[in-house]
Amino acid sequence: MPSSTDSLDARFRAAQPFAERGFWRPRVGLADRLRSLARYAERQGDDLTSWDGYGERGPVAEVEKRVADLLGTEAAAYFPSGVMAQQVALRVWTERLGSRRVALPDLSHLIVHEEDGPRAVHDLDYVHLTTGPVTATAADLAKVPGELGAVLVELPLRDAGHLLPTWEELVALAAACRERGVPFHLDGARLWESAPHFARSLDEIAGLADSVYVSFYKGLGGLSGAALAGDADFVRESRLWRRRLGGTVWTAAPHALSALQGLDEVLPLMPRLHEFAQSLAEAFRASGLRVHPEQPHTNAFRLYLEGDRDGIRKKVVQALERDHVALPFGWQRADVPGWCFTEITVTPEILTETPADLVEQLITSIRRRSAFADIKRARGLSSREILDDLRGDRSG
Amino acid sequence: MPSSTDSLDARFRAAQPFAERGFWRPRVGLADRLRSLARYAERQGDDLTSWDGYGERGPVAEVEKRVADLLGTEAAAYFPSGVMAQQVALRVWTERLGSRRVALPDLSHLIVHEEDGPRAVHDLDYVHLTTGPVTATAADLAKVPGELGAVLVELPLRDAGHLLPTWEELVALAAACRERGVPFHLDGARLWESAPHFARSLDEIAGLADSVYVSFYKGLGGLSGAALAGDADFVRESRLWRRRLGGTVWTAAPHALSALQGLDEVLPLMPRLHEFAQSLAEAFRASGLRVHPEQPHTNAFRLYLEGDRDGIRKKVVQALERDHVALPFGWQRADVPGWCFTEITVTPEILTETPADLVEQLITSIRRRSAFADIKRARGLSSREILDDLRGDRSG
Repeated sequence: MPSSTDSLDARFRAAQPFAERGFWRPRVGLADRLRSLARYAERQGDDLTSWDGYGERGPVAEVEKRVADLLGTEAAAYFPSGVMAQQVALRVWTERLGSRRVALPDLSHLIVHEEDGPRAVHDLDYVHLTTGPVTATAADLAKVPGELGAVLVELPLRDAGHLLPTWEELVALAAACRERGVPFHLDGARLWESAPHFARSLDEIAGLADSVYVSFYKGLGGLSGAALAGDADFVRESRLWRRRLGGTVWTAAPHALSALQGLDEVLPLMPRLHEFAQSLAEAFRASGLRVHPEQPHTNAFRLYLEGDRDGIRKKVVQALERDHVALPFGWQRADVPGWCFTEITVTPEILTETPADLVEQLITSIRRRSAFADIKRARGLSSREILDDLRGDRSG
Repeated sequence: MPSSTDSLDARFRAAQPFAERGFWRPRVGLADRLRSLARYAERQGDDLTSWDGYGERGPVAEVEKRVADLLGTEAAAYFPSGVMAQQVALRVWTERLGSRRVALPDLSHLIVHEEDGPRAVHDLDYVHLTTGPVTATAADLAKVPGELGAVLVELPLRDAGHLLPTWEELVALAAACRERGVPFHLDGARLWESAPHFARSLDEIAGLADSVYVSFYKGLGGLSGAALAGDADFVRESRLWRRRLGGTVWTAAPHALSALQGLDEVLPLMPRLHEFAQSLAEAFRASGLRVHPEQPHTNAFRLYLEGDRDGIRKKVVQALERDHVALPFGWQRADVPGWCFTEITVTPEILTETPADLVEQLITSIRRRSAFADIKRARGLSSREILDDLRGDRSG
């Protein structure tokens, strides 16, 4: 018998295609998406209707060129995943420097989400550049003694609530790495989403680093895939490791096409997604709910609620089944007992909603009674006054 | 300025779409192939129009189930490449046995084609089970002293001319591994193509081994991708290593769909491809040319010609440009000075040709004068008699 959590997951997946409002995304079936990629390929002309062969030519070569152009690097190499791309970057740097020791945040993807692969596969040693939900500075690096093979920072630090340093902090950290003679690698899974915060172009940001990884299936909405950018020699060596690891595949054309489509169609929306996330966080705060960071650095932030995780997830599923309202489903227990949090991510689809509508949908669906209780406590209002207030915001 | 080899490669690629005869394959453009996959997905019903998520559900789960059913194993895991799949199999076995030492042919893909990845990434040690173009037997294993973490054989041994052992030899080798307590891994990149030689079902062949890798983009014509099959516990551990290596991607749905299409549409043709390869090899031999093996074990074999590699490749390009006849382009220098060889692979498309036509196309296009000279020497015939003979074979 499935557990109640399995059954909630299954109910959520089954109801998701029928979402019409809220944090929804139109569910594009596999067949329709393949046809959309075919049309996109044809609009681009001959080059993109041809195949790559083991990553040479075709749309894979094209996406590598586009990434190198955008980031202002000599070259870029396509990778099937960010996990592989980043491990390869660190392998290349640490072998060159003769030190397997990498300084990185303890919340880094490599430590939290890769099943200890960087150590088990590449024998890397870690030293924590930062601990907990803070971004790294030159002062953090100064506190790390001994030899280092590379320094990695994640822009934004996702497991800290999508946090970014200031531009000045990032410039100073890059300078400190250069001074120490340590390669500076950017985990830019969400680099596209980070540029508006810095109010800098992508090549200005990438120009601070020795190597940069970018992802095609997060903010850009591609099928999968990643790229590693840097100088020509670094990228050549990365391709060697890609082959060794089994990442040079016969053809990655469908994935590369979807990456190009994301660069064309979604990348230009990043400033609007960032602004919307800031308005949305403000609307949540105005309703007495807690968010982190208070002013989101990217298109994503954390929303905290007092309540039971399974209880909240059940209400999310009910709202989806009953009202076709999509709300965040991935709730996790917070450090504070009795509290939960979720990631709120602003995608292009929800730009048709208003922040006030989204807040109202979430409060009336998920929390029904208890969110109102929170808000009543926080603002001394009645339920009616809260709803009137929210509706007023919307029409205003 | 490009070298003459680069320029031949480019001319071959440019003329290839216009091939109409010979060893041709219709050149399906990327957009058309994506639409064909979309139609295939829809014909399969709901399950295959939905997505996988990090390899769970959707067509990835379906192809894993189909492979496990065909090979009679408890489970199977999808991999982006065979390079990764096989390294993972050996990593799992060698860690379990506490010995990094793997016995495998010196012509194995892992030694010849993976940029020393298995050693550089997984710290494997090799011992050569066989040397040169022969297949392994229990007697070869008996000669290997010391502890072993795994034994690998490639079915067929591609770099030996697609050679297979006899069924009795394979059964005896499997028994010797079992007796010695060493896991027996099959490199089955071309396992689908090997079953007719053994006159055994796929599950009978796989049943001899502890783990089996199969490929989806060689004989089956898929976009890329591989699977690793074995018992449930082995496959679970393989998935852990797949994640660690960056092989668990957000979605592999297009690739998995193309694998399913290959299993449905190409797998049933394997006996015919094998028979055709045998007739074709015989026709080459009847014309006085040399092939290896004399009776092909799979749908592929080697053809040897006396001549200069670049000269032969140039004639292949000219035949393609002038007559739209596609001939093997991948010629390599043989051990014997002045001799070259190529791989002849029988694909479904050339079943519409006859062996005599293919031989005639190759002789008249590639070798013009010199092949005739070979045949005149070998059979004491005039050019006219040779051509009449070939045409008689065709009409007979």
